[in-house]
Amino acid sequence: MREFRELRKRYSLLDLCKTPDLAAQVTLQPIDRLGVDAAILFADILLPLEPMGIRLAFVKNEGPKIFNPIRTADDVKALRPVAPEEDLRYVLETVRLVRRELNGKVPLIGFAGAPFTLASYLIEGGHSRHYIQTKLLMYRAPEVWHRLMEKLARTLADYLRAQIRAGAQAVQIFDSWVGCLNPEDYRLYVLPHTRQIFKDLEEMGVPLIHFGTGTATLLELLREAGGTVFGLDWRIPLDEGWRRVGTDVAVQGNLDPVALLAPLPEIEKRIKLILQQAGGRPGHIFNLGHGILPETPVEHVAAAVELVHRLSAGTP
Amino acid sequence: MREFRELRKRYSLLDLCKTPDLAAQVTLQPIDRLGVDAAILFADILLPLEPMGIRLAFVKNEGPKIFNPIRTADDVKALRPVAPEEDLRYVLETVRLVRRELNGKVPLIGFAGAPFTLASYLIEGGHSRHYIQTKLLMYRAPEVWHRLMEKLARTLADYLRAQIRAGAQAVQIFDSWVGCLNPEDYRLYVLPHTRQIFKDLEEMGVPLIHFGTGTATLLELLREAGGTVFGLDWRIPLDEGWRRVGTDVAVQGNLDPVALLAPLPEIEKRIKLILQQAGGRPGHIFNLGHGILPETPVEHVAAAVELVHRLSAGTP
Repeated sequence: MREFRELRKRYSLLDLCKTPDLAAQVTLQPIDRLGVDAAILFADILLPLEPMGIRLAFVKNEGPKIFNPIRTADDVKALRPVAPEEDLRYVLETVRLVRRELNGKVPLIGFAGAPFTLASYLIEGGHSRHYIQTKLLMYRAPEVWHRLMEKLARTLADYLRAQIRAGAQAVQIFDSWVGCLNPEDYRLYVLPHTRQIFKDLEEMGVPLIHFGTGTATLLELLREAGGTVFGLDWRIPLDEGWRRVGTDVAVQGNLDPVALLAPLPEIEKRIKLILQQAGGRPGHIFNLGHGILPETPVEHVAAAVELVHRLSAGTP
Repeated sequence: MREFRELRKRYSLLDLCKTPDLAAQVTLQPIDRLGVDAAILFADILLPLEPMGIRLAFVKNEGPKIFNPIRTADDVKALRPVAPEEDLRYVLETVRLVRRELNGKVPLIGFAGAPFTLASYLIEGGHSRHYIQTKLLMYRAPEVWHRLMEKLARTLADYLRAQIRAGAQAVQIFDSWVGCLNPEDYRLYVLPHTRQIFKDLEEMGVPLIHFGTGTATLLELLREAGGTVFGLDWRIPLDEGWRRVGTDVAVQGNLDPVALLAPLPEIEKRIKLILQQAGGRPGHIFNLGHGILPETPVEHVAAAVELVHRLSAGTP
């Protein structure tokens, strides 16, 4: 969106996140402009790493960069405990501002990264192609790996609880890169820690969205780890994915983000197929299969939202 | 391998591929050193693009770079037909040299990229994260897309036939990046073209290996496209993947390449699990789930080969 790009000319991504007035403004931009049914907190999954003692920056055309990556038992030991009400109060202030501004119009969804995806950034120092160092920490030093995951899980559960207390009406946990693992590694090295977070959040009584990509062979295990809504990426037909996570939970998805750059008739065809696969059942939240691409024309997003509303009018 | 790194200090990747004596030497290096059961032709999947009129280079730390990417109907029209016996004779000469040198010791496997994976390089100009331009060509100009895929399929079928005539005793078709597609897009935009290649190769009477990664939701369609052996990546348990492609065909896989960097007991555990999933049935070719990583210790590969031989001794 143009409004966002204007702000980004004057502020870094971290500065925007850390200035509640601006972060709230960015959170609210899509609501009026696009007519979406929920607001998603503007923040970054790496924010809780800073108070743990991690120095990070977002480098143009490269993405996040961590200057002191974690590789050893001592590195893990040095990670500091986080008090979200203090250390991340700017996020909670954004949540409060947005709730006040929305005034009940649409719900606000908070979020955090999942322990695996955050660990991959911590260990690799940024984006990764093969997750070599991440997997090698698991394989070579499983006790160090588990200690790191425990620290992350505790931090993330506290952080999400604080977001909910500040007013988030649902939270989403992003395990964006978990699809690089096979089911056995997921079960051994990731599932216990992600499950801990969902267990800690259960009592908060809000919808818990569990999101990943490339998870076609992991869906049953993601379900086992927890959540009440499961994100499906575009690689799996929505009906098949829903069967796999269980039709007693809700699903979110699953338009290929690249499809939003296609001509409108092509977008329409794809949206219709997804809604048909959802079969008008309650519990399907229409969404992209992964984050929106910066190149996406805003008017395509607005047209897609309008179409989804029109085609699903009357369904619960 | 050290021998390979020594050569690479003095020759570019393209120069090595284009000098049959050196390419044959590299092809043979793993045979004595590692004890593997087959030789894989040393070449690059992008080689057949050069005689089509594409200018390419391999850039350090970045991978392949194409200087004149394909985006329009005219670009596709300008792609030249390839006569492998002329334009790629250095590859065929390598095949002949290796066969002579091997003297029946182990079979030689030739290979080529699949049309989709080559199209993605041609269109994006190199590696890609989201395959935006590739998918947009499909969605915006399907007739241009199909013409490009037809040209690639014809070139690749001719190229593989020439490799087989020169002495390759099996061929592998690498659709490394096809896992970015959903099944419906694969069926519409890719399957007909890949199927054409397998159809053209059928009469050659050699094993045809069909390889991809991230293909958990595509396996049935890969089978439909063709092949007599199917590559499985590490994300899917071998037995589940084998059921999905059909137990009447062979499978190849599926150790996570990163696992080869792990301590030996960890490698052993993983190899045992894969062999157990294969159940000693004929038609399982032990392999990695994707290409070997440059960081892999050679002695780990040798130990893995030795272990697979020991554990599967007596099975057909």
